[in-house]
Amino acid sequence: MSNKPKIVVLGAGYAGLTTTRRLVKTLSPEQAEIVLVNKHNYHYESTWLHEVAAGTINPNQARVMISDVVNPNRVRLVYDSVVEIKKDEQRVVLENSELSYDYLVVGLGFESNDFGIKGMAENAFAIEDIDSSREISEHIEYQFAKYNNDQNAEDHSLNILVGGAGFTGIELVGELANKVPELCKKYDIDRSKVRIINVEAAPSILPMFDKELVAYAKKSLEDRGVEIKIGAAISECTPEGFVVGDDKELIKAGTIIWTGGVKGSSVLGKSGFELTKGKVNVDGDLRMKGEENVFVIGDCSWVWNKEADRPYPPTAQLAMQEADVVAANLKALISNQPLTDFVFNDKGTVASLGHSDGIGNIFSGYKIQGKSAATMKKVVDNRSLLLLGGPKLVLKKGKFRPF
Amino acid sequence: MSNKPKIVVLGAGYAGLTTTRRLVKTLSPEQAEIVLVNKHNYHYESTWLHEVAAGTINPNQARVMISDVVNPNRVRLVYDSVVEIKKDEQRVVLENSELSYDYLVVGLGFESNDFGIKGMAENAFAIEDIDSSREISEHIEYQFAKYNNDQNAEDHSLNILVGGAGFTGIELVGELANKVPELCKKYDIDRSKVRIINVEAAPSILPMFDKELVAYAKKSLEDRGVEIKIGAAISECTPEGFVVGDDKELIKAGTIIWTGGVKGSSVLGKSGFELTKGKVNVDGDLRMKGEENVFVIGDCSWVWNKEADRPYPPTAQLAMQEADVVAANLKALISNQPLTDFVFNDKGTVASLGHSDGIGNIFSGYKIQGKSAATMKKVVDNRSLLLLGGPKLVLKKGKFRPF
Repeated sequence: MSNKPKIVVLGAGYAGLTTTRRLVKTLSPEQAEIVLVNKHNYHYESTWLHEVAAGTINPNQARVMISDVVNPNRVRLVYDSVVEIKKDEQRVVLENSELSYDYLVVGLGFESNDFGIKGMAENAFAIEDIDSSREISEHIEYQFAKYNNDQNAEDHSLNILVGGAGFTGIELVGELANKVPELCKKYDIDRSKVRIINVEAAPSILPMFDKELVAYAKKSLEDRGVEIKIGAAISECTPEGFVVGDDKELIKAGTIIWTGGVKGSSVLGKSGFELTKGKVNVDGDLRMKGEENVFVIGDCSWVWNKEADRPYPPTAQLAMQEADVVAANLKALISNQPLTDFVFNDKGTVASLGHSDGIGNIFSGYKIQGKSAATMKKVVDNRSLLLLGGPKLVLKKGKFRPF
Repeated sequence: MSNKPKIVVLGAGYAGLTTTRRLVKTLSPEQAEIVLVNKHNYHYESTWLHEVAAGTINPNQARVMISDVVNPNRVRLVYDSVVEIKKDEQRVVLENSELSYDYLVVGLGFESNDFGIKGMAENAFAIEDIDSSREISEHIEYQFAKYNNDQNAEDHSLNILVGGAGFTGIELVGELANKVPELCKKYDIDRSKVRIINVEAAPSILPMFDKELVAYAKKSLEDRGVEIKIGAAISECTPEGFVVGDDKELIKAGTIIWTGGVKGSSVLGKSGFELTKGKVNVDGDLRMKGEENVFVIGDCSWVWNKEADRPYPPTAQLAMQEADVVAANLKALISNQPLTDFVFNDKGTVASLGHSDGIGNIFSGYKIQGKSAATMKKVVDNRSLLLLGGPKLVLKKGKFRPF
């Protein structure tokens, strides 16, 4: 029908959704056809999933209907799962159909990475998407609901074991420190019967923050009954719990969650792409090395930070900034203009510790902690909504609860 | 210290709690010491448990702190479980102590009765108290939460199988007809994937109502997607579901609930009492046959209806009316006055079919159905609160949701 180029965006996470919205603004309908492929008809705020998993927010608050933020008359929306990318044939195989493309943007997000720890995949929950996260909160509540009604219930069935003390693990135990007392009250269980245990192999929690903030976070969590075990490597996950440390101690829990690592979507490997630590190495302009028309962004992308001589850590902030560059570079490609290289503008990092505490680095090195950090975290979360869907979305899904 | 008689009331259900409150009003502190023994520090509305089990009300709405409705300065409150009644020694053995009595009121309520159906006790949930009922609602929700996240999930894990089409069974499926669409929406599951199946051996549901009302109820439930299988005897309950009918069809479900029968507390048997269908046969004045000082009321009591030549069906209404007579008879015993016989004043029966439909017989034979019956059911429920705790309790726990 037309000769206009077809841009296919895979994934409606922070990276893919932002790219799509930028493309709609940047390109006229005559310049390109845009197709957005996503497994579900909704986007979710993946940085809020720890709250869904703890049960401190409703799963629906963390998701946004794609058709509410992308005009279906401008973008063809395909709700299907990606099976394989055949880049030599410029085709994408979906579960229920196939798509050809002229330009491809791969933003397929992350999967849990258990680094091959024995039994982890089988026995631990992972925080990957809405489905997996709300199952965790329901599983936890179910342990509480069963406890008083089961003569043989063991106390450790109430325990919640979280592997990994990175961003997700620590933010999760922070939420659990709020949630567990509520569950205890609801199900007539003494708070002292429930252990929240965080296990981390590294010598510190939250390696992206400095010692002072880390010490603050650790104390805040411990004061609220979270046990933090650092320098404790997990050698195995059994149906009962983690086997930890040199003396192979078994820490038992009714709920076991692994947050210790992520990798790029498994579609990358299935498509035969060359991978660096499970991700695709990209050039400065965010194209897959050696490819003219394939961009890879977000958690699937291995982007080198030349200044720090290491890759950028995967965050929502990074993904959305990459999306801006990819949209601009797609326009440049179509118009035969030179491409620009990605430069990250770090606006800071804030970690919540439950709903009324947190730590953060903002404005290039300014440290915050306590309630002001918790407030700032909500500002950050609402800003992500603003970028994705404008003020209407902030009003609909924003975080305005009292703190 | 004193020679005043000691009245011990076992159980703070409708029967025991009402007896206690009547005694406080009827007797002066000098006339008798009153002790109320209950497993928990709360009373629960056992006629609301199907709503707790379906998850359509918060468990806390269905319970009342005993100290909120009984003055602890007038009544000694003992929160403990009854192990055995030694009536020849006028003693009650509790899990953590013992009590002697001059007069005893046994109001220990009901337990599920599976009539010996193979596997039922092991594999089906029963609606017996707050703990067991909220576990059911959590179990149901957990099946929904797991479904989309489990590659191997089978559709029948979403099914809810309810054995028994008496009051509890039918009121439960009525609530489930409201709850299931909400859960489907919350967990992104197509409503058509979920079956609510009610299985009853008798040729009709709700045997206490006439054909016209039964037909109305059946149609109302079926219109909302409840499958009702009458004349379908359950020969076995397996972990997967019910084995039903002559052809031994296995109906599979992720949630299996038995509501097909109740019997009096197992303490009665453990205490060596002579039982008729699991209950204690009482005289007209509600004393255990042959006993001077032991009253048995509520679901533990087998009370003959001479007019109808059959026992009264156990209801909250019956229990509370019995309590009035027991309190009066205790006062008469203490004062050496003649005892009076119990006469039941039937105020009618209303069954809910979810929150906006129902059927009922009120004012001796006047039939109601539809929204007016649903409204009347809430009036009945609020009246029970009024009798137990006065207007304050109605305001606190009453049912005023829109319908």
